[in-house]
Amino acid sequence: MTPHSQRTPEQSRILRLLRDRGPCTRAELVSLTGVSRSRLAGELDELATVGLVQRDGPGVSRGGRPSPLVALADDLRFVGVDLGATSVAVGVANSRLDLLAFVEEPVDIRDGPRKVLAQVRDLITKVSGEVGTDRPSGIGIGVPGPVSYRDGVPVSPPLMPGWHHYPLRDQVAREYGCPVTVDNDVNLMAVGERWGGVAKGMDDFLFVKIGTGIGSALVMNGAVYRGIAGCAGDIGHIRVDDEPLCPCGSRGCLEATFGGAALARQATAAATSSESTVLADLLARNGVLTAVDVGVAARHGDPVAVRLIRSGGQRLGNVLAGLVNFMNPPLVVVSGGVSRLGHVLLAEIRQTVYSRAMPLATGNLPIVLSEIGETAGVLGAVVAASDQIFSTL
Amino acid sequence: MTPHSQRTPEQSRILRLLRDRGPCTRAELVSLTGVSRSRLAGELDELATVGLVQRDGPGVSRGGRPSPLVALADDLRFVGVDLGATSVAVGVANSRLDLLAFVEEPVDIRDGPRKVLAQVRDLITKVSGEVGTDRPSGIGIGVPGPVSYRDGVPVSPPLMPGWHHYPLRDQVAREYGCPVTVDNDVNLMAVGERWGGVAKGMDDFLFVKIGTGIGSALVMNGAVYRGIAGCAGDIGHIRVDDEPLCPCGSRGCLEATFGGAALARQATAAATSSESTVLADLLARNGVLTAVDVGVAARHGDPVAVRLIRSGGQRLGNVLAGLVNFMNPPLVVVSGGVSRLGHVLLAEIRQTVYSRAMPLATGNLPIVLSEIGETAGVLGAVVAASDQIFSTL
Repeated sequence: MTPHSQRTPEQSRILRLLRDRGPCTRAELVSLTGVSRSRLAGELDELATVGLVQRDGPGVSRGGRPSPLVALADDLRFVGVDLGATSVAVGVANSRLDLLAFVEEPVDIRDGPRKVLAQVRDLITKVSGEVGTDRPSGIGIGVPGPVSYRDGVPVSPPLMPGWHHYPLRDQVAREYGCPVTVDNDVNLMAVGERWGGVAKGMDDFLFVKIGTGIGSALVMNGAVYRGIAGCAGDIGHIRVDDEPLCPCGSRGCLEATFGGAALARQATAAATSSESTVLADLLARNGVLTAVDVGVAARHGDPVAVRLIRSGGQRLGNVLAGLVNFMNPPLVVVSGGVSRLGHVLLAEIRQTVYSRAMPLATGNLPIVLSEIGETAGVLGAVVAASDQIFSTL
Repeated sequence: MTPHSQRTPEQSRILRLLRDRGPCTRAELVSLTGVSRSRLAGELDELATVGLVQRDGPGVSRGGRPSPLVALADDLRFVGVDLGATSVAVGVANSRLDLLAFVEEPVDIRDGPRKVLAQVRDLITKVSGEVGTDRPSGIGIGVPGPVSYRDGVPVSPPLMPGWHHYPLRDQVAREYGCPVTVDNDVNLMAVGERWGGVAKGMDDFLFVKIGTGIGSALVMNGAVYRGIAGCAGDIGHIRVDDEPLCPCGSRGCLEATFGGAALARQATAAATSSESTVLADLLARNGVLTAVDVGVAARHGDPVAVRLIRSGGQRLGNVLAGLVNFMNPPLVVVSGGVSRLGHVLLAEIRQTVYSRAMPLATGNLPIVLSEIGETAGVLGAVVAASDQIFSTL
């Protein structure tokens, strides 16, 4: 039996408990897992043999002889990779999923698997070096497109030319000799929010990412719902208008009217037509305009920038109002670079959802910003990696 | 222990197997449930004592001595009640959930619990008499509004004045001395479709009902997803336009622009303005126009009626396209009275969804009409009633 082998259901329960609660005495494990004392001893032996737990950590005493603590092996290291369209983040976490190292840099996903994965490899080497580990116990990878979760491959990802059916999971697993799990980046961000963010411990919520594009994830009954083709949550191409043309080929997609790319385009148009002098000045100074510039202009009171943000917030809010009616979630988490444009955006989204969705669905519905922002994807990836190692599958 | 008591997980597995597959030998039960032969004997003893199974049905022989079959008790009877806004259907089923009797008649849900439940009681007496049973083993009830599934009460149901927090489950349970389960009517129709309709055995699908209003149900991982307030699937009040005013107080709700009530209103306007002579004739003859008349006029080639159906199908199709992107289901089932208006409607819905949702989400997505129509709600209700009796909760 190796760490790759299947866990028994009892082993899986033990491992998750130790991850989620920290070191436990055997008595605690017996009471929390319902596994008998003798069975527990056998399972712990197996888990120690494959290097997943250590049986005799520092003891705790409640008066009598100290009871030794069972803990996850100290040297377990999970690597999380959050591949976006234009940036990649890599982190490494210990067995309790504390991030020990984190690095982020620009990438162009359109460069294709060979070039992008070479960059990912360098970043893994870098963070592994920082924490002094030579081999990850498991790797989780998020990619900006639909994924066949079962096969570990991207499926027709519109932003990722050259990646369709690329054997990402198996390729990386072969390279690193450890289990690898691949999922959509927004799904993993939602998993990260549920592990260590504002949705901590929530079994149901709707997660929305406003970055270059717009995506969402549905967390239901404690798990991400992926849909039959792995593209559930892909709300960026919901039609909200008759124009403009979207790179996907349709017209009036949500993502074509709002999001980082749309804001940059709209701001550039307003600058070159001299509709907004603030934006024109920013364009003259920087040579190019991004969504961040729209936020800057709005904070300087530029009415055009404020209008662009308001109008985008309304369009997204309208879509979310429909999804809130449909799913009736107890929480909506908004994340992604564009979500940090300032109070105006969140206010507009909230007002639109609260006024357009049904009162019964919004009566007690917080719509909140992510607090862990850019680390959510990597955090979700290490959670997915440890879930895989600790699972019965 | 009474039939109301809790089942063990093993008993629950045995009961569902006997319901879903029919009578089994003990050897089959051992192999299908994984329960040991001696444990099985004990569980069957308990289940026979409370009257849920019979241990010695007719035997089957595969050459040697015939093995007696274990079966669900012959006298189990489940009652299903499908309360709509304007009609109520009641049926009674045996342990295998074959409908033995079915009756449907008009009702006005706005008459409130006292009057409506008196009518339901009469119908239960009628169908019970038809099949010669005196006491149901369990009752399932669907109502046309949001339900707190846990509490068994309607919650702020817009179509049901006087029913908010009415203790429907507990009241009926007290009256009949058997377990009762209450759910939203569209949710139960979806359960019925999954049991015996076009979605038979499907663990994931999107169910849409076009009746007087428009509703939907999300079946995910084998169960209806209800949402935090019990109103998941309530798509009738998704905003699709700026007008007209909806009875809910908002403007431009899907249900205000399409569905039985909207079609009747639009047809009456076209008749009185003499825009459509066919509809004007129907109005003169019948005194009132319904959605059915729009279907009749369309089949006679009336261009106004065809336009009303097309336009409604497009509006619904647009909403469904967004939900298909969001949920990425493997199947969409369309049901309800208005869904039977003819081929034009389904063609329009299909065309809109297939052209507006993402290719990855529609690549292999059947959009089909229900084949069990008006019995789906009652069938779902008896499934829910038996699920409750056969469950560990």
